[in-house]
Amino acid sequence: MRAVDLILRKRSGGHLSEAEIRWLIEGYLRGDVPEYQMAAWLMAVCWRGLDRRETQVLTLALAESGRQLSFAGFDRPVVDKHSTGGVGDKTTLVLAPMLAAAGVAVAKMSGRGLGHTGGTIDKLESIPGVRTTLTADEFVAAVRRHGLVIAAQSPELAPGDGRLYALRDVTGTVESIPLIASSVMSKKIATGAQVVVLDVKAGSGAFMKEPRTARRLARLMVQLGRAAGLRAVAVITAMAQPLGRAIGNSLEVREAIDTLRGEGPPDLLELCFVLGSEALVAARVVESHQAARRRLQATIADGSALARLRALVTLLGGDAACVDDPRRLPHAPYQVAIPSPRAGYIAGIDALACGLAAMHLGAGRRTKEDSIDPAVGLVLHAKVGEYVERGTPLFTLHARRPVPVDSLAPALASNAAQSSLDSFYAGRAGEGVPPQPAGEPSTAALPEEQAAVEAAQRVLSAFRWSETPPPAEPVVLEIVT
Amino acid sequence: MRAVDLILRKRSGGHLSEAEIRWLIEGYLRGDVPEYQMAAWLMAVCWRGLDRRETQVLTLALAESGRQLSFAGFDRPVVDKHSTGGVGDKTTLVLAPMLAAAGVAVAKMSGRGLGHTGGTIDKLESIPGVRTTLTADEFVAAVRRHGLVIAAQSPELAPGDGRLYALRDVTGTVESIPLIASSVMSKKIATGAQVVVLDVKAGSGAFMKEPRTARRLARLMVQLGRAAGLRAVAVITAMAQPLGRAIGNSLEVREAIDTLRGEGPPDLLELCFVLGSEALVAARVVESHQAARRRLQATIADGSALARLRALVTLLGGDAACVDDPRRLPHAPYQVAIPSPRAGYIAGIDALACGLAAMHLGAGRRTKEDSIDPAVGLVLHAKVGEYVERGTPLFTLHARRPVPVDSLAPALASNAAQSSLDSFYAGRAGEGVPPQPAGEPSTAALPEEQAAVEAAQRVLSAFRWSETPPPAEPVVLEIVT
Repeated sequence: MRAVDLILRKRSGGHLSEAEIRWLIEGYLRGDVPEYQMAAWLMAVCWRGLDRRETQVLTLALAESGRQLSFAGFDRPVVDKHSTGGVGDKTTLVLAPMLAAAGVAVAKMSGRGLGHTGGTIDKLESIPGVRTTLTADEFVAAVRRHGLVIAAQSPELAPGDGRLYALRDVTGTVESIPLIASSVMSKKIATGAQVVVLDVKAGSGAFMKEPRTARRLARLMVQLGRAAGLRAVAVITAMAQPLGRAIGNSLEVREAIDTLRGEGPPDLLELCFVLGSEALVAARVVESHQAARRRLQATIADGSALARLRALVTLLGGDAACVDDPRRLPHAPYQVAIPSPRAGYIAGIDALACGLAAMHLGAGRRTKEDSIDPAVGLVLHAKVGEYVERGTPLFTLHARRPVPVDSLAPALASNAAQSSLDSFYAGRAGEGVPPQPAGEPSTAALPEEQAAVEAAQRVLSAFRWSETPPPAEPVVLEIVT
Repeated sequence: MRAVDLILRKRSGGHLSEAEIRWLIEGYLRGDVPEYQMAAWLMAVCWRGLDRRETQVLTLALAESGRQLSFAGFDRPVVDKHSTGGVGDKTTLVLAPMLAAAGVAVAKMSGRGLGHTGGTIDKLESIPGVRTTLTADEFVAAVRRHGLVIAAQSPELAPGDGRLYALRDVTGTVESIPLIASSVMSKKIATGAQVVVLDVKAGSGAFMKEPRTARRLARLMVQLGRAAGLRAVAVITAMAQPLGRAIGNSLEVREAIDTLRGEGPPDLLELCFVLGSEALVAARVVESHQAARRRLQATIADGSALARLRALVTLLGGDAACVDDPRRLPHAPYQVAIPSPRAGYIAGIDALACGLAAMHLGAGRRTKEDSIDPAVGLVLHAKVGEYVERGTPLFTLHARRPVPVDSLAPALASNAAQSSLDSFYAGRAGEGVPPQPAGEPSTAALPEEQAAVEAAQRVLSAFRWSETPPPAEPVVLEIVT
């Protein structure tokens, strides 16, 4: 067998046998097939695709490239969860404690975020003291002992996926339904949970912009899970506007805590109920979705879910007092509320624009080498369907640097009378915004301040308005079983 | 600038600026852009193509990656020639001496063959003593002194193309019109001739199977040459049946010598006249194509072209006596004529099948590491349009090993009565074919003998027949200026 022949076959739209895919992947992981041949093959896969059988073989080859954990003989079903990533997506921090309190064990490994969609691990690590690096053995032991662990993806599991993903990342071959599906499911299969619930996001803030593409990915992942003996279910969910109100690591932890206290935003809560119900039904600990939802609601009402989060933070070495006093979480030195430039109903909030704004403030990584600022981000004070008066706070920026809001005047004025904004700014001086020296033009802002201004402009431009209430935006688009 | 962004842009069908292509190629050649990123970009180029401007920048970046020769101030126009490769294509060995005798200088660097289309260098080196490795300085000096040099491609010229081609070869990215065109033309530009005549072959034995594809390549190469200040002209020529009658290195040298003596096959001679006329007209040493053809004919009639070949062989350290006594060339120990299994007109001879047969006999390389047997190959005794009687020789195999023709009986018998073939075989014993021991089945052939049998079967199956004379097959399909 020669790698170039397998590349040429895929390039011309042909199919590879099980033996050929195994030879290629195992040869690559052994170092016999060089990176450049794998890179060419990956681009040919982006071009021509993989059929279901090819994807299945690739998934198993990656899953079998390292340790495969097992929770056989455990007293409760073990559930895993995955999200394809969205803006403001703190779902795991809410759902995992709820599920653990509802009678299943949760064993979740999670990646760090890259780009505008932050990772669960980054959010958890914004809690002082939290360290999420566990060995595979520690992970299994902790799941058995505590019934709930969220840890950083272990390099012991599916190391082949790690290597392949690193190559895809630098060769422009990330975006491919079969490659994404096999990457996700190889790790889920290796983690060893019996039930996997997949949150596949669709919309501007998601990797998949189109519901049709999200559906293809969801179906393929469910099929791959089933073929490997997992009870897998996928939920396609909306990512047109950000999820909840907070975007940024410690800001999202705080919102997750609020949600477990019964004070969360309705869209986030509803999403957790839907994903959680699917997980509990698949785990066969309840008879129906209604019973599942009641049980999940109870974990909030009786404080048991919050207790589970407290225990998780302690397990990970973090300051559990944060769960009861979120002011202990890192917070940004400059918090500036930006007023609404007009009155009206919010018809849309572009999630991608909000995510990019948070990333540019320092909440996300542009490159793998970037460090993350746990405190920065933004909080939306209005979401789609809500009515906003002109001049009332539309969102608050949480920034490491001063935000010279004068620079925003043109953007704000585009929909409002300048005079009312002038008086607003006058009233805000001293609230984190240094007064501008008289006569100094706003363009004198420092580069890092300019970044904050640009972030605010991005968020402002993310809003769409209407005179009448817009149609409701459903959180859950489709359930794929 | 990041390589991954340029890969992603090309992957999505976008275009790269001149600065971006230069950054990518120069970074790759410096080692800053790794092989795997270049491999992914190349596959994306195979997928999405390059526009003319991108191809032009790539070509110049490759041409400028090493030395750029110049023949400025030379007393005659300097002509270069390139063929995209075909079966039995010994055109350069005939045309270059003719052109040199007709009043232009010929400066040609040439590659070794890979696959079924042997290289001019391999053919030249089948002449005892010939060595084609010259430094760039030696090459220029030899052109100035002798007016005709054919040498192996110098690594001093367009080394970037050499590196890129080696990567394309192992990553399944050879087949791409813009990549092929830029590879060819970067070397032609670096070689420094003022006139380039391009023989672009179309048909089963050529890289381009379809005239349409050959035309795209031809036009692009001419445009690239013109943009770099070369007088470039392309001729699209037929490669449905092999060119001439001989396939195999020393066999083709012999046919080239025969042609320069005025005893060559008509298709090869016509092709040399057409290519040569285009070159002489582009070089402005004649007024018209008719005058060019007359001058070329004269170089054969007066022996001046043959004298030029003799001088070339001497220059390259070879045994020039071979030119006058071709029996001094290497010859295969087993030469077996295969009889025609039927009577009729030859309607077609599949060039690819003949090329693969010669390659399997040892005349070509399956991999770059293969060595070549200079003596083996085959000679066709009939070409398309000719009438053949049953049992008369159809072609002769020149093999390193015995050819147990008994094994061919079923293939031969498929169109003919077995009895007549039996008597044929009986008559051939002792002519290179060892008599089979009584009772031993033909399947007892040694593996290397089996290869010769398979080669013969391949060539046999390449023939198509008809009861009536088939339409004439033109040698020249189109001239692209």
